[in-house]
Amino acid sequence: MSEQVGFVTMAGQRATSKAPEVGVGMLGYAFMGKAHTNAFKKLPYIVYPPPAIPRLVAIAGRNEEAVKEAASRYGYEGYYTDWRQMLDDDRIQLFDNGGPNYAHAEPCIAAAQKGKHILCEKPLARNAQEAKAMLDAVNQAGVKAMVGFNYRFVPAVRLAYEMIKNGELGEIYHFRAVYLQEWITDPEFPYIWRLDKELAGSGALGDLGAHIIDLGRHLIGEVKSVMAMTRTFIPERNDPETGQRRKVEVDDAFEAVVEFENGAVGTLEASRFATGRKNHQVFEINGSKGSIRFNLERLNELEVYRTDAPKHTQGFTDVLVTESYHPFWSNWWPHGHIIGWEHTFVHEIAHLLDCIVNDKDIAPYGATFEDGYRNAVICDAILQSAEEGKRVEVTF
Amino acid sequence: MSEQVGFVTMAGQRATSKAPEVGVGMLGYAFMGKAHTNAFKKLPYIVYPPPAIPRLVAIAGRNEEAVKEAASRYGYEGYYTDWRQMLDDDRIQLFDNGGPNYAHAEPCIAAAQKGKHILCEKPLARNAQEAKAMLDAVNQAGVKAMVGFNYRFVPAVRLAYEMIKNGELGEIYHFRAVYLQEWITDPEFPYIWRLDKELAGSGALGDLGAHIIDLGRHLIGEVKSVMAMTRTFIPERNDPETGQRRKVEVDDAFEAVVEFENGAVGTLEASRFATGRKNHQVFEINGSKGSIRFNLERLNELEVYRTDAPKHTQGFTDVLVTESYHPFWSNWWPHGHIIGWEHTFVHEIAHLLDCIVNDKDIAPYGATFEDGYRNAVICDAILQSAEEGKRVEVTF
Amino acid sequence: MSEQVGFVTMAGQRATSKAPEVGVGMLGYAFMGKAHTNAFKKLPYIVYPPPAIPRLVAIAGRNEEAVKEAASRYGYEGYYTDWRQMLDDDRIQLFDNGGPNYAHAEPCIAAAQKGKHILCEKPLARNAQEAKAMLDAVNQAGVKAMVGFNYRFVPAVRLAYEMIKNGELGEIYHFRAVYLQEWITDPEFPYIWRLDKELAGSGALGDLGAHIIDLGRHLIGEVKSVMAMTRTFIPERNDPETGQRRKVEVDDAFEAVVEFENGAVGTLEASRFATGRKNHQVFEINGSKGSIRFNLERLNELEVYRTDAPKHTQGFTDVLVTESYHPFWSNWWPHGHIIGWEHTFVHEIAHLLDCIVNDKDIAPYGATFEDGYRNAVICDAILQSAEEGKRVEVTF
Amino acid sequence: MSEQVGFVTMAGQRATSKAPEVGVGMLGYAFMGKAHTNAFKKLPYIVYPPPAIPRLVAIAGRNEEAVKEAASRYGYEGYYTDWRQMLDDDRIQLFDNGGPNYAHAEPCIAAAQKGKHILCEKPLARNAQEAKAMLDAVNQAGVKAMVGFNYRFVPAVRLAYEMIKNGELGEIYHFRAVYLQEWITDPEFPYIWRLDKELAGSGALGDLGAHIIDLGRHLIGEVKSVMAMTRTFIPERNDPETGQRRKVEVDDAFEAVVEFENGAVGTLEASRFATGRKNHQVFEINGSKGSIRFNLERLNELEVYRTDAPKHTQGFTDVLVTESYHPFWSNWWPHGHIIGWEHTFVHEIAHLLDCIVNDKDIAPYGATFEDGYRNAVICDAILQSAEEGKRVEVTF
Repeated sequence: MSEQVGFVTMAGQRATSKAPEVGVGMLGYAFMGKAHTNAFKKLPYIVYPPPAIPRLVAIAGRNEEAVKEAASRYGYEGYYTDWRQMLDDDRIQLFDNGGPNYAHAEPCIAAAQKGKHILCEKPLARNAQEAKAMLDAVNQAGVKAMVGFNYRFVPAVRLAYEMIKNGELGEIYHFRAVYLQEWITDPEFPYIWRLDKELAGSGALGDLGAHIIDLGRHLIGEVKSVMAMTRTFIPERNDPETGQRRKVEVDDAFEAVVEFENGAVGTLEASRFATGRKNHQVFEINGSKGSIRFNLERLNELEVYRTDAPKHTQGFTDVLVTESYHPFWSNWWPHGHIIGWEHTFVHEIAHLLDCIVNDKDIAPYGATFEDGYRNAVICDAILQSAEEGKRVEVTF
Repeated sequence: MSEQVGFVTMAGQRATSKAPEVGVGMLGYAFMGKAHTNAFKKLPYIVYPPPAIPRLVAIAGRNEEAVKEAASRYGYEGYYTDWRQMLDDDRIQLFDNGGPNYAHAEPCIAAAQKGKHILCEKPLARNAQEAKAMLDAVNQAGVKAMVGFNYRFVPAVRLAYEMIKNGELGEIYHFRAVYLQEWITDPEFPYIWRLDKELAGSGALGDLGAHIIDLGRHLIGEVKSVMAMTRTFIPERNDPETGQRRKVEVDDAFEAVVEFENGAVGTLEASRFATGRKNHQVFEINGSKGSIRFNLERLNELEVYRTDAPKHTQGFTDVLVTESYHPFWSNWWPHGHIIGWEHTFVHEIAHLLDCIVNDKDIAPYGATFEDGYRNAVICDAILQSAEEGKRVEVTF
Repeated sequence: MSEQVGFVTMAGQRATSKAPEVGVGMLGYAFMGKAHTNAFKKLPYIVYPPPAIPRLVAIAGRNEEAVKEAASRYGYEGYYTDWRQMLDDDRIQLFDNGGPNYAHAEPCIAAAQKGKHILCEKPLARNAQEAKAMLDAVNQAGVKAMVGFNYRFVPAVRLAYEMIKNGELGEIYHFRAVYLQEWITDPEFPYIWRLDKELAGSGALGDLGAHIIDLGRHLIGEVKSVMAMTRTFIPERNDPETGQRRKVEVDDAFEAVVEFENGAVGTLEASRFATGRKNHQVFEINGSKGSIRFNLERLNELEVYRTDAPKHTQGFTDVLVTESYHPFWSNWWPHGHIIGWEHTFVHEIAHLLDCIVNDKDIAPYGATFEDGYRNAVICDAILQSAEEGKRVEVTF
Repeated sequence: MSEQVGFVTMAGQRATSKAPEVGVGMLGYAFMGKAHTNAFKKLPYIVYPPPAIPRLVAIAGRNEEAVKEAASRYGYEGYYTDWRQMLDDDRIQLFDNGGPNYAHAEPCIAAAQKGKHILCEKPLARNAQEAKAMLDAVNQAGVKAMVGFNYRFVPAVRLAYEMIKNGELGEIYHFRAVYLQEWITDPEFPYIWRLDKELAGSGALGDLGAHIIDLGRHLIGEVKSVMAMTRTFIPERNDPETGQRRKVEVDDAFEAVVEFENGAVGTLEASRFATGRKNHQVFEINGSKGSIRFNLERLNELEVYRTDAPKHTQGFTDVLVTESYHPFWSNWWPHGHIIGWEHTFVHEIAHLLDCIVNDKDIAPYGATFEDGYRNAVICDAILQSAEEGKRVEVTF
């Protein structure tokens, strides 16, 4: 190539050179693999200057063709077909577990034992017992470990968190939350791993309910007791692996009443049978000084009621949480130029990297493995309450 | 007065002369007295031709000054200071009980024994036992008796009812309903009869919860079991009668999960501590073929999701239920010229009068005393579940 | 009838006895006749104590069968088949003209000459010249005369008016308003008087546009100039009277830019071809300190943006204008129990009666005939601008 | 570093190896530089397989420190401080002009003459004359040239486009669009280049209005005539360069009525003085078979009214345009996991790269320089109409 007149090369100068590099090993290349990788790639030029530069060392998966394709697509330096081997790779400091629920515990425990920092998708585990073992492992290893409760990192949710902490809502009376989807209302929808209790732990509860339980704990405080019902509307489905009908053992929906230690009460519900609801996570909080409402499908907005507004113009205010002074927004665009769902992972992973390289605490902004464990305890309590037909006091 | 050239007098011709007259005796002159009377007065020219012409014979109340004022204001022919005497008035065929909860049972039972038809405000009674006595009385007397669950008569709710009956939503999976208000969040709000368990029966449950329980039964079907919590956020208030602090024994809020006999599950909640929520009754129903959502503060609208809509334009449709072919709307205005809350009573009372003069059944459109009784059973079950911490199967 | 023990009769005591009586003579028994009569009937017990008691003396219409039916339905004491005769009836102090546009000028002028107070539906006249004659007549007669721009009497609109007057929006920059309907999009919709320029004056402009022009003048100030286009989408329709095709000479829609004397600018639009829009009058006002938005189909709400709200929770607030301290609401129900379109007439007529019996000014709350005339001048200017293709300065 | 057992390296295998590479030279490193670069970086793993792999060869800007920082931040191989030199770089096939309005014409014309394909931000030029020169240059050079009217690439807007083309809205009657912002309402906001007619061409008109004019042309058809007003609310501002007051010569807002060649009429408005409106681009289209409404601040949604829906459930449907079968969505996430504003550029640039490497037409999906020129003609017509106070027929 001919000499370029006036061209000043950046070669030899690593991008954003002052930031340390953190080597990433990713497990999983499906939905969450794509979402996390996207965040690793955007972070260095969006969160600027970045706390660290993720280096996409390797991605692991059992299907070599698929994992190679993913490595190519996402720009990983290479791949493994065995996550155990990946954990031996010294270039990797951060193990990102984006695999299915049944592949959370063993790899995460092994990663902790290898001294890797960990990001594990939610729910942390299939049940409290499994989660406890994971918690113990990371505590013993002293690594940074975060659970992927990414909705804590929605700007509007962080704003809600800060308002509550600042006392802007006063004493909290109510938390009501639903997480509604519709994707298995078709009876012909097949039996998949998410419907297998052995592999998934639970159904809508662990998949969707875990998110709103986490938000309840994050925003309101610890859960004291629950009363719940669960329902499986379509009891059998075709198993594509066997061609046979197979019993669905997980919940298609759960409904719960919840009591918090600080006296607030409310309802929790998740369903995969809410026709027309695509990704409808909505929560409302009522306090003595105000209320807020959030809807994930309009995640750039937060509805806020303030009792200190002038009386004649009180009402729920649709706050477009896109100002430069709103959480995370200094990284983004001019106000009103909204962000999407995927951006929550940019904020989440930036926080994790900051904790790793600057030895900060994951809590309170991020969900620790302790949070993940307690979440699992509450999920177990909900299943127990539904089965026994009585209120279950939550003990950790 | 001078002779009016060209004037044709209507004197001697009773308005809408073919309709029979139904004499009304009203108990109560406050909120519900005003709302019901307004309906009696509007009905003859709005529901046209009217099934009957209400004749406002008398209104009863203990405070003579107030009841006289009400009689004057509303155009009653006269008044009574003792409802027992009013029930002896032969000109009265319909006894309208708009009094407080503690004044429902005795007057209604007496009215039934005198052969009066009855409209009783909700909740029918303070508990199931009291409601049962009222039910037995009207059954024995063979009078028409309706409970004032007026939200059945919102055009959008009737439309929802018809759609469900027609199978447009398919199999019903979920019913979630809240009825949220905020009017006693102020700790200085005084102790009033609605906070007195002896007089009111319960708190938010009977006042607000009864409405959404009725809508659940009306739209979805019979309730099978409940699990619930209740909460009294402010345990003592100033009693203006004594100047002393007094213990609040009713619920400020209740939270419940509910199971219907047809398999649907959901949540129910009512609160007087939902800051910013004025009269926020919202329910959502999800079925295999579609979903609907209703919000009382926008009662002219019904949100509808249909799975049979073209795929690329599916979504929740904001139906403005104001077309001439929508329920009740042939009586009103051109489309888009919305009606208000008070108009539900016009529809409700027109139905009752039609049942009275044409010997039709209150059910299924109106709430019978059987409905009122069952509603009370469910309220009792909710209180029992909250107290005992276990699921309560509902038996009537 | 047997003696009623305990019954105290109101006979001989006129309802709300201290209020003077105002005799009403109504012209027209269709849409507006019903809406106005409803207001006359509700007012005495809703606006309490009422400024005056309307006495429904007579209703006039050419079709005797229809007018007799209306007299019966609405409870008028009698009827006339000739409005001229009605104007000779001394029992009538208030002439209410709810007739079509072509029947506004002559009866109103005659009524003024007879010393009747006047309520005339909008638009006041078919053009400015006709309106001027009406204005001169009422000025000369010294009677109270109001034009039925009822949307001034929506509580949310009055709240907007008060906020602007109080400076809560600061300097006003923009007024944009649409009034959209859809009722003649069907090419088979017949030729009716509203499509006849001779009878109606104009199309969407006078019917719908007049309302938003009035709101612009009421809320923002006087109009300085306009630029406009009009469109008739379906140029011919079947005339049911002749069975022939007939040319439509009025506008199906108009589009205008508008400049106010105080420097604000904006757009005005009305259409009968906005598919899906039933009665969609929406306006937005932007000022240096805040903005408001109103939607007639949700008339109990006002969206308000305040620059003095805490920065992190600024946004458009959905104010439910139903508090006891909001305009007109002390008359109605507990907050959140919404009112309907028809109630605007209750407020409007209460104001008129107050002006009549207490000799108060119609302005600024009500629209005077001067307002009606200026409105007509602006409508004429819009038509002229559309025809000439140039900006027209408005002069009165 | 120790040998990695099981690691399969991707080194030597270019990512997504079958796609050709397109070298990019970017002018500008501010708002648009960031937005475009983000799209170039995301495209290879989001639009998969990608039509081409953008190679970020160089970025140009006059301020060396800033451009070096941008090159580092965004991962460009190097930088230029003179765009002329960059256009001599043979590694660059695509010149991306994200600079300010006054830096559009000269660099784009030069790039065309060098045979570079071009992406130029909107408005294409400061006036029609300048745009015409640019159009002539790219036509003569035969390069692919696109104007950054990115809102054509919002999934909901593409859906609207397809629906209109398919006749789902029938004959189009109306297009009304606003683009409202608030960022210079503060009188202390300084004089910047966007307020300088020499540098910007116009104010809100070219900045915001150009977008809605493009959408009108894209969705409805060619513009026939306009009538308009403009307004500069704050006539002078402090110029930070001189410390002096300086006259603002561009429009703070414009208001227009617009007529399309196909007979549709409507309004256009853009303002930087709409307090509370952050990035409020809203348009509504009414046709004989239905209507649609779009709001950029909720860009994942499209409101749709269909006259072919069942009569009793007609209404505006809030379509969440996030299904896999919706435009562009096969690239993204499960439904309901919304995308943001920035993603429009991913779609836009993917289209451009596809056109470049596969020699496809920019039109009709993308905006050509012909579109950019015609847009400028319409902007000029609006200014002319405002100045002359008369309707201006648009001629190209």
